[in-house]
Amino acid sequence: MLKILFSAHRDRWSEYEQPLNAAFAAVGLAADLALDHSPDEVDYIVFAPNGPVSDFRPYSKTKAVMGLWAGVETIVNNDTLTQPLCRLVDESLTDGMVEWVTGHTLRHHLGMDTHIKGQDGVWRDDSFPPLATNRPVTILGIGALGAACGQALARLGFPVTGWSRTAKSVPDMRCLHGEEGLIEALTAAEIVILLLPQTPETTGILNEKTFSLLAEGAFIINPGRGPLIDDSALLAALDRGQVAHATLDVFRTEPLPPDHPFWSHPKVTVTPHIASTTRPETAAKVIAENILRGERGEPFKYLVDRARGY
Amino acid sequence: MLKILFSAHRDRWSEYEQPLNAAFAAVGLAADLALDHSPDEVDYIVFAPNGPVSDFRPYSKTKAVMGLWAGVETIVNNDTLTQPLCRLVDESLTDGMVEWVTGHTLRHHLGMDTHIKGQDGVWRDDSFPPLATNRPVTILGIGALGAACGQALARLGFPVTGWSRTAKSVPDMRCLHGEEGLIEALTAAEIVILLLPQTPETTGILNEKTFSLLAEGAFIINPGRGPLIDDSALLAALDRGQVAHATLDVFRTEPLPPDHPFWSHPKVTVTPHIASTTRPETAAKVIAENILRGERGEPFKYLVDRARGY
Ligand SMILES: NC(=O)c1ccc[n+]([C@@H]2O[C@H](COP(=O)([O-])OP(=O)(O)OC[C@H]3O[C@@H](n4cnc5c(N)ncnc54)[C@H](OP(=O)(O)O)[C@@H]3O)[C@@H](O)[C@H]2O)c1
Ligand SMILES: NC(=O)c1ccc[n+]([C@@H]2O[C@H](COP(=O)([O-])OP(=O)(O)OC[C@H]3O[C@@H](n4cnc5c(N)ncnc54)[C@H](OP(=O)(O)O)[C@@H]3O)[C@@H](O)[C@H]2O)c1
Repeated sequence: MLKILFSAHRDRWSEYEQPLNAAFAAVGLAADLALDHSPDEVDYIVFAPNGPVSDFRPYSKTKAVMGLWAGVETIVNNDTLTQPLCRLVDESLTDGMVEWVTGHTLRHHLGMDTHIKGQDGVWRDDSFPPLATNRPVTILGIGALGAACGQALARLGFPVTGWSRTAKSVPDMRCLHGEEGLIEALTAAEIVILLLPQTPETTGILNEKTFSLLAEGAFIINPGRGPLIDDSALLAALDRGQVAHATLDVFRTEPLPPDHPFWSHPKVTVTPHIASTTRPETAAKVIAENILRGERGEPFKYLVDRARGY
Repeated sequence: MLKILFSAHRDRWSEYEQPLNAAFAAVGLAADLALDHSPDEVDYIVFAPNGPVSDFRPYSKTKAVMGLWAGVETIVNNDTLTQPLCRLVDESLTDGMVEWVTGHTLRHHLGMDTHIKGQDGVWRDDSFPPLATNRPVTILGIGALGAACGQALARLGFPVTGWSRTAKSVPDMRCLHGEEGLIEALTAAEIVILLLPQTPETTGILNEKTFSLLAEGAFIINPGRGPLIDDSALLAALDRGQVAHATLDVFRTEPLPPDHPFWSHPKVTVTPHIASTTRPETAAKVIAENILRGERGEPFKYLVDRARGY
């Protein structure tokens, strides 16, 4: 009987207990899932931020920590964590992100806000957006989420450029990497989507210098992490019209403080970290299958590389 | 030398003259395109509403009328028109419609308006839309435009039902037809998209009875034609919450009069007949190729069936 500890914010237990137990049973794992176990007996930890565990040293025989989140910046620098750490890669998390990113990309591309916000009785039928084929989109980060979003946008006709740390090849997209690649990827981009993890290298990647590479009147969509953007550089770029609008789902401080200028800025749309969410049924299956791999002596999937930070 | 008459609103000439001449030259047609020709000498008429020609009888040797629009309700009942009538089917018109329909479908699906309209500093992260796979979409009309929109939405995961007059089969969609099919297509639909032509049969197809079939809180998206909807039934359905929101691009009277209740209704988004537009470069190619077919004795493409009205 595997002892599996669930360490997350209290509210998560009622959502996850049943799906996790069902998923363990479905793959034939005999598991005792609980909110507490004696640390030295725990085989696996199912983990999300804001739970009880922050010192992993007592978990001496724990074989892996299974994150419930795609982003691991809150745990990756925890020096007490010496056990393998897996992040969540889940089809429904990806699908949700593709829907959110495609929706907001089309929203900006089509200039929907004019009609959604302004109903003044005046019929203005004299301007049309270009077709998607004439609207270059750049995605910074083409991992599990960025690559799926890029392909969905390419299927709608957008010319998509993706950028990553290492050289990659994703169908239907122009793929660039490294520092020079970044300059090429951002130059003349009209819509920029951030799907990078938060690491020291990616922090402030959109800053005064990189904003100035974009097409005049570009749109920024950030469902990645708040620190990817230098907030004051963004406000300046919005004010001088270099950036026409920013739709931000993630922030340096969350919840975004009520007095933060983003809330009231006419060119910023704030969404409360809802771009995509972990859905217990599908996440539980991914975790059960990964624990099964461990028990069979197979390598874990979705292992975080602690040195590179994601 | 073919004599081709251009009959449309004056403003169109400067947009179309060069692309049409280029397209004729590209397919090797010797054509004299002009704003007037002696009626009895005209071989083809390139036609849009609001131009000089409304009586087609003097055009005794005209081989076909080539419409610049996808919808033909303003000309199809013109009894003086005995020549073949072709409507416009054009890849870029289709692409534009797919972008507009996909964008507004995702907008309603994701509940974007809450964030676009309401920035009150309150972080509300407790509700998520279902995934697209759990959001049934129905498209009335699965011709050139409806079928392309349905397939784009199916690729994003939406379960799509399409409805037409005759039995059809479109990949990735459930296809229904006829009167019984309509009831099945609308029952429990959460997003309904109208891409039917305006004919006596389709007028008022969304009415008190058919609105009541939809899921509570459904969304209506109408880029088809205004008369497809019974306006007072829509207003009533909005007021009782049966319909949560309607995004309307077309109206019984266009421009929509400034005092029409749709403009100020909080649950209606008005767009000024801009869902998709004919782009001169691509439209000119389609027309040149169709005239070439006629000159070669091949049947015209996109012929309107005057009896069925589209
Ligand atoms: N807002 C939300 O609701 C939400 C939900 C889920 C996830 N997220 C965010 O989305 C992020 C991406 O998730 P994912 O699953 O797609 O991650 P992933 O599969 O690890 O992909 C990360 C991508 O970023 C690239 N990258 C990392 N560091 C880089 C650097 N220094 N320079 C250039 N490229 C770099 C990686 O390059 P390589 O391919 O070369 O490794 C990879 O392409 C997460 O980290 C999380 O912050 C947000
Ligand atoms: N808002 C804009 O910017 C814009 C731009 C372009 C077009 N439009 C509108 O979009 C409409 C559709 O264009 P399209 O090119 O897709 O037309 P289409 O190829 O002729 O397709 C029309 C579809 O409607 C169906 N239909 C017609 N009468 C019907 C009836 N009585 N019952 C059930 N189904 C019926 C047809 O059924 P069958 O397949 O059985 O024939 C077909 O599937 C145009 O008529 C125009 O009004 C709007």
